[in-house]
Amino acid sequence: MSLKRIAIIGATGYTGSELTRLLHGHPKVELTAITSESHAGKRFSDIHPQFRGLVDLELIPAADLDAKAYDALFLALPHGVSMDYVARLDAEAGLIIDLSGDFRLDGPETYRAWYGKEHRYAEGFGRAVYGIPELFENEIRGAKLIANPGCYPTGALLALAPMLAAGFLTSVGGGPVIVDSKSGVTGAGVSAGAVNQFSNVHDNFRAYGISTHRHSIEIEQYLDRISGARNTVQFTPHLLPVDRGILTTAYVVPEKLPSQEALVEQYRTFYRHRKFIRLRSDPPEIKNVRGTNFCDIHLKADARTGAVIAVSAIDNLVRGAAGQAVQNMNLALGLDEGLGLNQVPLRP
Amino acid sequence: MSLKRIAIIGATGYTGSELTRLLHGHPKVELTAITSESHAGKRFSDIHPQFRGLVDLELIPAADLDAKAYDALFLALPHGVSMDYVARLDAEAGLIIDLSGDFRLDGPETYRAWYGKEHRYAEGFGRAVYGIPELFENEIRGAKLIANPGCYPTGALLALAPMLAAGFLTSVGGGPVIVDSKSGVTGAGVSAGAVNQFSNVHDNFRAYGISTHRHSIEIEQYLDRISGARNTVQFTPHLLPVDRGILTTAYVVPEKLPSQEALVEQYRTFYRHRKFIRLRSDPPEIKNVRGTNFCDIHLKADARTGAVIAVSAIDNLVRGAAGQAVQNMNLALGLDEGLGLNQVPLRP
Amino acid sequence: MSLKRIAIIGATGYTGSELTRLLHGHPKVELTAITSESHAGKRFSDIHPQFRGLVDLELIPAADLDAKAYDALFLALPHGVSMDYVARLDAEAGLIIDLSGDFRLDGPETYRAWYGKEHRYAEGFGRAVYGIPELFENEIRGAKLIANPGCYPTGALLALAPMLAAGFLTSVGGGPVIVDSKSGVTGAGVSAGAVNQFSNVHDNFRAYGISTHRHSIEIEQYLDRISGARNTVQFTPHLLPVDRGILTTAYVVPEKLPSQEALVEQYRTFYRHRKFIRLRSDPPEIKNVRGTNFCDIHLKADARTGAVIAVSAIDNLVRGAAGQAVQNMNLALGLDEGLGLNQVPLRP
Amino acid sequence: MSLKRIAIIGATGYTGSELTRLLHGHPKVELTAITSESHAGKRFSDIHPQFRGLVDLELIPAADLDAKAYDALFLALPHGVSMDYVARLDAEAGLIIDLSGDFRLDGPETYRAWYGKEHRYAEGFGRAVYGIPELFENEIRGAKLIANPGCYPTGALLALAPMLAAGFLTSVGGGPVIVDSKSGVTGAGVSAGAVNQFSNVHDNFRAYGISTHRHSIEIEQYLDRISGARNTVQFTPHLLPVDRGILTTAYVVPEKLPSQEALVEQYRTFYRHRKFIRLRSDPPEIKNVRGTNFCDIHLKADARTGAVIAVSAIDNLVRGAAGQAVQNMNLALGLDEGLGLNQVPLRP
Repeated sequence: MSLKRIAIIGATGYTGSELTRLLHGHPKVELTAITSESHAGKRFSDIHPQFRGLVDLELIPAADLDAKAYDALFLALPHGVSMDYVARLDAEAGLIIDLSGDFRLDGPETYRAWYGKEHRYAEGFGRAVYGIPELFENEIRGAKLIANPGCYPTGALLALAPMLAAGFLTSVGGGPVIVDSKSGVTGAGVSAGAVNQFSNVHDNFRAYGISTHRHSIEIEQYLDRISGARNTVQFTPHLLPVDRGILTTAYVVPEKLPSQEALVEQYRTFYRHRKFIRLRSDPPEIKNVRGTNFCDIHLKADARTGAVIAVSAIDNLVRGAAGQAVQNMNLALGLDEGLGLNQVPLRP
Repeated sequence: MSLKRIAIIGATGYTGSELTRLLHGHPKVELTAITSESHAGKRFSDIHPQFRGLVDLELIPAADLDAKAYDALFLALPHGVSMDYVARLDAEAGLIIDLSGDFRLDGPETYRAWYGKEHRYAEGFGRAVYGIPELFENEIRGAKLIANPGCYPTGALLALAPMLAAGFLTSVGGGPVIVDSKSGVTGAGVSAGAVNQFSNVHDNFRAYGISTHRHSIEIEQYLDRISGARNTVQFTPHLLPVDRGILTTAYVVPEKLPSQEALVEQYRTFYRHRKFIRLRSDPPEIKNVRGTNFCDIHLKADARTGAVIAVSAIDNLVRGAAGQAVQNMNLALGLDEGLGLNQVPLRP
Repeated sequence: MSLKRIAIIGATGYTGSELTRLLHGHPKVELTAITSESHAGKRFSDIHPQFRGLVDLELIPAADLDAKAYDALFLALPHGVSMDYVARLDAEAGLIIDLSGDFRLDGPETYRAWYGKEHRYAEGFGRAVYGIPELFENEIRGAKLIANPGCYPTGALLALAPMLAAGFLTSVGGGPVIVDSKSGVTGAGVSAGAVNQFSNVHDNFRAYGISTHRHSIEIEQYLDRISGARNTVQFTPHLLPVDRGILTTAYVVPEKLPSQEALVEQYRTFYRHRKFIRLRSDPPEIKNVRGTNFCDIHLKADARTGAVIAVSAIDNLVRGAAGQAVQNMNLALGLDEGLGLNQVPLRP
Repeated sequence: MSLKRIAIIGATGYTGSELTRLLHGHPKVELTAITSESHAGKRFSDIHPQFRGLVDLELIPAADLDAKAYDALFLALPHGVSMDYVARLDAEAGLIIDLSGDFRLDGPETYRAWYGKEHRYAEGFGRAVYGIPELFENEIRGAKLIANPGCYPTGALLALAPMLAAGFLTSVGGGPVIVDSKSGVTGAGVSAGAVNQFSNVHDNFRAYGISTHRHSIEIEQYLDRISGARNTVQFTPHLLPVDRGILTTAYVVPEKLPSQEALVEQYRTFYRHRKFIRLRSDPPEIKNVRGTNFCDIHLKADARTGAVIAVSAIDNLVRGAAGQAVQNMNLALGLDEGLGLNQVPLRP
């Protein structure tokens, strides 16, 4: 089988560099183009010097890209920008994987409410498939446009899905599911500003976006879909003084608490044959998944309080972005889902 | 007024060195003895080299200490050890401030259940006053034995007390109050082990003690006392890759959600005239309280979900241990509560 | 004695906030004005939220400042900007302490060569005194304009001065004195950019400014002055993934190597009665001086190689900037040099 | 070609886990045994949980290993222990790669002088080849026993070799070559102690082993061999608050300073066709080589001072240990030297 031809649109962000890292080692694809408007003409390794000698491709403007020549296009662009590229490329591209938030929600009204802007390619919502392979594999296999999930929703949904799918009715009296998440600073993007300045992050910790973060609604919508019921999500993100990793601690108070054994068995069954999900008897650590597509999960049914605590650990740049995107690409192109994703976690 | 004479029992831990740092700059006290069994004969600055030239006191064994000669004794000892010192010194010491967990709970049965050992000085429970000055000032003023609170309970109780005191009935249907806390690694103590090894902590993050941590019951008991009702607490501590600081994110679902304004006003009134409590319109950051006795608090009533989120930031070694101990000492000795605690947060 | 009236010109940088931290606790001064052009009208604690409740002064534009009303003015401004303020204020201010690099070198030619710009107040060079109290105390006592030293030169000169003052002829055959320094990232200033972005600094380390850094000539000029001979300095700064601290490892190959004892004795004598200099038998650590004005020094005469290694540790924001500035102010105003500088190092 | 059979002796350290990470992804080898005395019977992933699902091999005691059944044995053991294993296995093993310091020096006398103990297998010195492939490839190709270099010497020798090989006579007047190195904390090994406790390392920096570190003599001996002349090395290691990485800043004062262009050209020629050496026009960063076998090098001939500064960056666990060991194995077994070493640096 000849190699699949791949292009990445958007080179300067962390998502772009992680996609490049993973695709560079993928045995069945050939990364033949990377675009950048601001750095066209430079080499990729001029922008990301760790790639020197490995990926020295010259960056081209997106307008020079012939979408029809590629088996898959990755869009590593900001939300609000990505939708225009999707609108333009949707007809001619074989497969688009959009890593922005532009096509994840259920339609333009919800998008407007949470992203604060009009959507310019509302048709895309109907065509887009939400790309968490362990939850929506069948849809992904036939997809032409994949909305790659947000980093926080990936960790939260993988931690909660088996429980809700089992019909554990959540949150007595209609109280919200609590999703308390802690992320490394690369989640804030590559642009330098106060938010990611060393002295504001190092030796520090804080919450942000309390009650207003866009991922609240993304988590909520897919919990509804998985559970077939209406859920409310109280989502609080926090900023960790680390580069990568998201740890999510989720709390659900079911009407009837399952036993610890039944709880774990439900997850074990749900994720049977899923190589990237690792159930852990100890609470997971973000360093045990660093640089990889793994999602490590730990569960606790607390008989004293009546609550279930589910904890998940992912690398926000890999499972929360580029790695899951490659996993989605593999499925959509008919390849083994794990190709290019066999990294061992870098620890220490 | 002559200077108050102070001794610290237990020199090697972080609590001992923080007490020394604060008492060294206190204008009304004289730190005249520090004990250590393992390092007796060495200078304090041999164990804590940052004190070289500042505090070079020779360490003495506790047996050499004449308790009657001191206005206050600080016990900076592990739980399970501290109770024996209290038993021995209780009669002759003017004031004992115990920084261990040995006298915080409501009696020996609860102690046995959560600490896994028999208590050897049960009389102490009746004599001990729980030392959060903003909540229990009157009792502290007359105290002879002060149980200095745990680091996590301090942050949690200061964040939750005004809400519960106002009779916001928590947790619809009897669900637990969620207390999701994140602590710097000094909370694990000074002994070197896997738990505080650099490569296990740096660039890492994890939960621990899920559903079993002893501070669960400490928080619960004092929430009950403040609210006059029965509460359940789901407490989850996490380990941050920082030296100091605890950020607590607490979730309560009241039967009737107050407005944002009423919520903030309730806290403002409750903490009026309290110099160490700072209400923040932005979520607090641990670096804004580093090295100080401040507790910064932020509140959010989320009309979409019906929940209240309360976030607090403290320095676990100061407000969560040595600083609060000095504040307690000041009150018990009739001094201004802020003496020796005027540090500016060290940021960056 | 009435309190000395003090103003700080330039509020937004780390130097401004450190000066405020130190002067806030100084028993003999009153910090009555802080200026800012970009934030005039805001409170100081709006820019530096750690000061909330401690220093809530309203920032004023520098033009509103009546220089004659102050006993001392601190200029916490970038080089190239500061010279104009000195030019304007020099006549009317009682004492100016300039924390920029504008008046540290021996004249406008050297300034042009190393700073790449014309100097607009060349008269200032003749009036300015270089402010390392342990080396130039007599001049500082009578000064009206003090050029506060650079952070790297402070650490290097304190480490090397006693050796050169003793006439140890350096660097056989005329080779350079090697000054290999490692600094925390606050040395790069408060403006957010690639240089201080978390992910570029954290878990990283690099050299910069090899052979070209401006502090090379600053170190060289004062080594010459101290030794009465001509020295060449090979200075290499590096960027540490910490907020604060400079460790300097300096190498000198004298014509005749002193014994270890003679070397240490020379330093002990030179720094006798100097409370901020601590000679250490173990290599110093930046965390043992954090937040303080100390300079810890360790020495080694290596008989195998013929070289002397001198290692110093300082806090770049305190001894390398604001703390030394306060020490200089104390001397110039006739106060005890240690006032306001009695902090205990914050460790851990 | 059938897969080469490989065993690792010593599972618990960082070297053991890095070897496993690299060999797990090596296309031409099969890692079939890992030994541990203290953890025999457990799975490898019990000790190193990041490997869960990837390498779950059961650990066996070394005595159960049939050395003849393996194409190569890696010894990941402490110095002083490793020599006994080499003595026992030397006759029957096809290839031994010893990652300890036991066979790096020129003989038992030097070993005794610098390691402070008697050597129990002096014959090994004559049989051992020093394994830096770019410098000693021919000897490595035929080797049966490879002494894998120390982490610091690897960075220092790769930075200095081309200069000394070119006959730049170093250090006017016989002064030492200055090697100022900064290492991540994993260099101190996996055992928990004060040296690698989080609060002693984080936000801290210090030198250690000044004038006495064993790597001084290792660097010196191979500089002599490369240059054909006698050199003295002043080596100062420092401890960085990062997990991995060594940055070495080396200073040489040649009798006649080459031009910048001639200097770079000498290195370019020397390392032509060497895929793991990357010459950099900017100073290298340890994060640009993280997790990989690269050595990035930057050079500066300073006409002002007469010195050459050479800076190198490596990952101490990969190029400084396990990666170079795999590269040596590849050469000794007749494989392409880069197999299994194609990782992209993990940045951020």
